[in-house]
Amino acid sequence: MKKILLLGAGRSASSLIRYLFDNATAENWHITIGDISITHLQPLVEPIVFADTITFNVHDTEQRAEEVRKADLVISLLPAVFHIEVARECLKQGKHLVTASYVSPDILNLHAEAQQKNLTILMESGLDPGLDHMSAMRVIRSVKAAGGKLTSFKSYTGGLVALESDNNPWRYKFTWSPRNVVLAGQGTAKYIKEGQYKYIPYHQLFRRTDEFYVEGYGYFEGYANRDSLSYREPYGLLNIPTMLRGTLRRKGYCEAWNVFVQLGLTENSYTLDGAEHMTRRTFVEAFLPPAVSPEQSMAERLSLYLGIPVDGEVMQKLVWLGLFDDTPVGLAEATPAQILEKILKDKWTLAPGDKDMIVMQHMFEYELNGVLRELTSTLVVTGDDEVQTAMAKTVGLPVGILAKLLLQGKITHRGVVIPIHPESYEPVLDELEEYGVNFVETERVISKG
Amino acid sequence: MKKILLLGAGRSASSLIRYLFDNATAENWHITIGDISITHLQPLVEPIVFADTITFNVHDTEQRAEEVRKADLVISLLPAVFHIEVARECLKQGKHLVTASYVSPDILNLHAEAQQKNLTILMESGLDPGLDHMSAMRVIRSVKAAGGKLTSFKSYTGGLVALESDNNPWRYKFTWSPRNVVLAGQGTAKYIKEGQYKYIPYHQLFRRTDEFYVEGYGYFEGYANRDSLSYREPYGLLNIPTMLRGTLRRKGYCEAWNVFVQLGLTENSYTLDGAEHMTRRTFVEAFLPPAVSPEQSMAERLSLYLGIPVDGEVMQKLVWLGLFDDTPVGLAEATPAQILEKILKDKWTLAPGDKDMIVMQHMFEYELNGVLRELTSTLVVTGDDEVQTAMAKTVGLPVGILAKLLLQGKITHRGVVIPIHPESYEPVLDELEEYGVNFVETERVISKG
Repeated sequence: MKKILLLGAGRSASSLIRYLFDNATAENWHITIGDISITHLQPLVEPIVFADTITFNVHDTEQRAEEVRKADLVISLLPAVFHIEVARECLKQGKHLVTASYVSPDILNLHAEAQQKNLTILMESGLDPGLDHMSAMRVIRSVKAAGGKLTSFKSYTGGLVALESDNNPWRYKFTWSPRNVVLAGQGTAKYIKEGQYKYIPYHQLFRRTDEFYVEGYGYFEGYANRDSLSYREPYGLLNIPTMLRGTLRRKGYCEAWNVFVQLGLTENSYTLDGAEHMTRRTFVEAFLPPAVSPEQSMAERLSLYLGIPVDGEVMQKLVWLGLFDDTPVGLAEATPAQILEKILKDKWTLAPGDKDMIVMQHMFEYELNGVLRELTSTLVVTGDDEVQTAMAKTVGLPVGILAKLLLQGKITHRGVVIPIHPESYEPVLDELEEYGVNFVETERVISKG
Repeated sequence: MKKILLLGAGRSASSLIRYLFDNATAENWHITIGDISITHLQPLVEPIVFADTITFNVHDTEQRAEEVRKADLVISLLPAVFHIEVARECLKQGKHLVTASYVSPDILNLHAEAQQKNLTILMESGLDPGLDHMSAMRVIRSVKAAGGKLTSFKSYTGGLVALESDNNPWRYKFTWSPRNVVLAGQGTAKYIKEGQYKYIPYHQLFRRTDEFYVEGYGYFEGYANRDSLSYREPYGLLNIPTMLRGTLRRKGYCEAWNVFVQLGLTENSYTLDGAEHMTRRTFVEAFLPPAVSPEQSMAERLSLYLGIPVDGEVMQKLVWLGLFDDTPVGLAEATPAQILEKILKDKWTLAPGDKDMIVMQHMFEYELNGVLRELTSTLVVTGDDEVQTAMAKTVGLPVGILAKLLLQGKITHRGVVIPIHPESYEPVLDELEEYGVNFVETERVISKG
């Protein structure tokens, strides 16, 4: 019997847990699920003979050592900052680790030791990062195998709402960490376009969007992710003239979000004075220039300050959020970002029965036999309901399948690894099709040389 | 004989050194000047019997301990990050310390130990911070003594060029650390206006300026300094409805500087790829959206991107700097801010004979006997030449006078202290008048109650 220790069982773990349970008998697994709070899991897990739950505190070094010792493989869906402690324990005790988070410099430092101990720390194994790498690498490999030369690669992913639940003016609801949504994009985005490096500071990011149309799903817009350059090497595209990875939103979202950025509402580096006495209206007031005349409404002043029409779509989105209301913000000692997150949570939470939607689109350009072609590969996944979300599926299933492959000995790369090798991505993409996770490819000729 | 150790002898030390020499005989001082490079000092110091120079490396712990041991008082004009090591050594060996830098959290942590050892770490003793505190406190004390109640305090300081040397379109040249000028304002500016806290994120800072007129010197504009709120307590103005400290520039400077901020050229958090191959033009290109048409000039694209007129004053300032030239940037492994600094240094350096100018303006509003009054206190100091600058005088003289007062036993406050007590500021302001550093006060009635 193989023992799997799953750490972190928040909402994005639902599909992973279901996948592990569905495969446990055939694979002869025992599954231990550890979380800081497990009451919501007990009714689910209690009837299952091959699974149990434990209250797990990542800061308890003794418990961490003890639980890792009992496991054959560890999966961590904990917040990304906690992976490093888990990874160190796994190395110490000779266990593989799978996570859905980005490789951090701390984790990368463990590469040599993991290789030497014949262990795999498999990072970036969820949706984005994860499924984006796997699906892109399959296309890149097949284009190269046919003798094609890639000249451009752009890839966008977004967690959105399905058409039937798309009923607010932002056309957005939270399907993953609200905190991460509020802080998304801070820093400088870096990409390359036609051989020219491009740097976008945060305060310009939500203006510099690209527009897409996805057949059957309508218009989207994308903004650049923080670092598109670092994936050129692992993708084998070191000299590609154009490369950009980004995040998808519905058209209009970024222009409205930019209001928060321009005002300074997404700042998380300092605490506001007197937040405990603030209403939403006085919160916004703190970021506006002082009123010139007492007759001006807040919407008028915001309109003048940021150059947005006073009765346009952006302003409608802000009014719909209740940004100008006298509702208390209900937080003390809070950063602007924390107050904004709270305002958004009131409005952007999935309602019972709501379905979310994942959209991923890769756009390749390549040259083959003197012909320049464009290949588009598109994935759309819709959630079942507000618990078995498309987000939970597309994060959890790749993690689960990769964990299975590791336990089966089918993944041979050791060290700190991301799923860019055929031994990882081919079986994952094949198995995902059984769950309705299918990429649709279209191709057209751009020009003949 | 009292021994003074002066650490850091860059350009802003010229007036301080002259002041120390001028007072050495009467005060029975010996002065040791330590800097990482002292060749420029030797011709000045060699003929002086009561002074010597040493090559001083702040990272050499042994030398640091040895030199502090020999001194009775230490003055540090080193870059601010190095003060903490010097301060720890002074505490260990029981020596007073004077610097012109802001109190950092590290330094503040030494307060109790310094008090207990009967030592003074006198910070913020230069121009801004320094002379601004001293001159403001004198007015605040006299208004309070007369029974007045302060309702508003705004204070702006700028290091600029004198009218006769004001010969470039920016109306600005470097008179202190170019690096600090490039990075100025990063973070969030905080102030209070009519009881309402106001937060200005960096990317809005250079838009949200106030305008002033100084009789005989023309128009200026000011932007808010990072934290105006923290001085309410030391100034004894805890409940003042309006308080703002800021930086002065010539009218038009901020709008043009804002172009650098909006593009992202003042970022210092990452290194550009391939800087060694960049020209100024390709440097700017990296921050512009990709060209829509090959016929567009860079100025036209910048104009469209940031909404600045293509033939207006802002663009003229940028063209004058050579920002669109094919000159190589001449740096490798550089951040955007480092490249910008280099471009500016080529153009903004004081020429031989150039005179600089310090402008400080305090604006108070106070109520006395039912009458609301405005009191304006203005200082203008002009430099002698490009070495004995107004900046060097207004930074160095207060530091020197405060050091003298400390050695004379006339400063009794112990711990980490800033010059906000009459025992410090009264004698400093009096002595400064002998050097032509005079504040001019004007007063007018705003309204009768």
